[in-house]
Amino acid sequence: MTEPVAVERVSVERVQSDSPWEETIGFARAVAVGDRVLVSGTMPLVDGAVQGEGDPYVQAKTAFENSLAALERFGLDASSVVRTRMYVTHARDVEDVGRAHREVFGSVRPAATLVIVSGFVDSRVLVEVEVEAFRNTEESS
Amino acid sequence: MTEPVAVERVSVERVQSDSPWEETIGFARAVAVGDRVLVSGTMPLVDGAVQGEGDPYVQAKTAFENSLAALERFGLDASSVVRTRMYVTHARDVEDVGRAHREVFGSVRPAATLVIVSGFVDSRVLVEVEVEAFRNTEESS
Amino acid sequence: MTEPVAVERVSVERVQSDSPWEETIGFARAVAVGDRVLVSGTMPLVDGAVQGEGDPYVQAKTAFENSLAALERFGLDASSVVRTRMYVTHARDVEDVGRAHREVFGSVRPAATLVIVSGFVDSRVLVEVEVEAFRNTEESS
Repeated sequence: MTEPVAVERVSVERVQSDSPWEETIGFARAVAVGDRVLVSGTMPLVDGAVQGEGDPYVQAKTAFENSLAALERFGLDASSVVRTRMYVTHARDVEDVGRAHREVFGSVRPAATLVIVSGFVDSRVLVEVEVEAFRNTEESS
Repeated sequence: MTEPVAVERVSVERVQSDSPWEETIGFARAVAVGDRVLVSGTMPLVDGAVQGEGDPYVQAKTAFENSLAALERFGLDASSVVRTRMYVTHARDVEDVGRAHREVFGSVRPAATLVIVSGFVDSRVLVEVEVEAFRNTEESS
Repeated sequence: MTEPVAVERVSVERVQSDSPWEETIGFARAVAVGDRVLVSGTMPLVDGAVQGEGDPYVQAKTAFENSLAALERFGLDASSVVRTRMYVTHARDVEDVGRAHREVFGSVRPAATLVIVSGFVDSRVLVEVEVEAFRNTEESS
């Protein structure tokens, strides 16, 4: 006689935002899987309109703020972020986007990646960001 | 007297597919680490041949199907997917690729990212996708 | 009377390297969150200088070595890597970068992605890599 193995189930929660692309493409703004919170690639849109047109710094700041707004729905803030990715369309914008990242995450120090790509689903967007966060962490002593 | 700390070991499993690139570059089609299943960047190849040449919708559908075939080896289907990434070579293909994603994942709603890039290891490929899944989840009530 | 739920806290540790970009952009070279170790997008820099200028094979090898040096700070080596990403600027460099990956990870077989992008924060860099590792794993029998 064998006893069934007790499998620990992990809960999944999703949140949506006001981005029209979530319906068109079929995705959530963020998905929490147990302690991990995965935020979708996020553009500097507010009510579907691009903010800071032509200004990579404002666009990066807005995209990060949108990502943090998704985390806030799970009770988290920037300090919970463990990995970021910055997709940027022009080499000349790296300094501005990097400055925005440092202002938001400089004291957090996530793992980060920055690559220059060809574009996004909206051609006026200069930067898209992606973050992953973790709940219930503590700094190692 | 101190007792040894019991470290819980997490099992790692890998599966291969028929993609010739797995040998050339040295990677697995998918790696399961505990409850997480990481699928490699996946192109619309069948037996090494590009499907749907010139057709981004067919290519996206085929790439997702290839990814799901890898998940199926672990007993999982689309509903287990928590994050997707779509790498697309042309802005004009975004609508077709997005539609393919919605058809496959619209009821699942993973976190998603879509970026336009310059290309892949095979120049006839218009779209490459990447998915991550999770075993033993339950929807939050 | 209800008892408080015991939440298991997961420790976070960060390491820095000699890359000047970590200060400029505000990130860590690698972040360990529990058993996961997330390494930042890593270029072929040594003391801030690009190695192997014009040589994608040397650049890929150096970028992987830099990533492994970060893992080594957590007591890990290449065998712990479960996912890699290669961002490459020219289609003609795919073979060289793929060969470097196979030499480093061919016996490990992580999940992998290779995409061609437009560039990085340093315009002399031909390849940037990203790895994720896992502690306390065991091969499945």
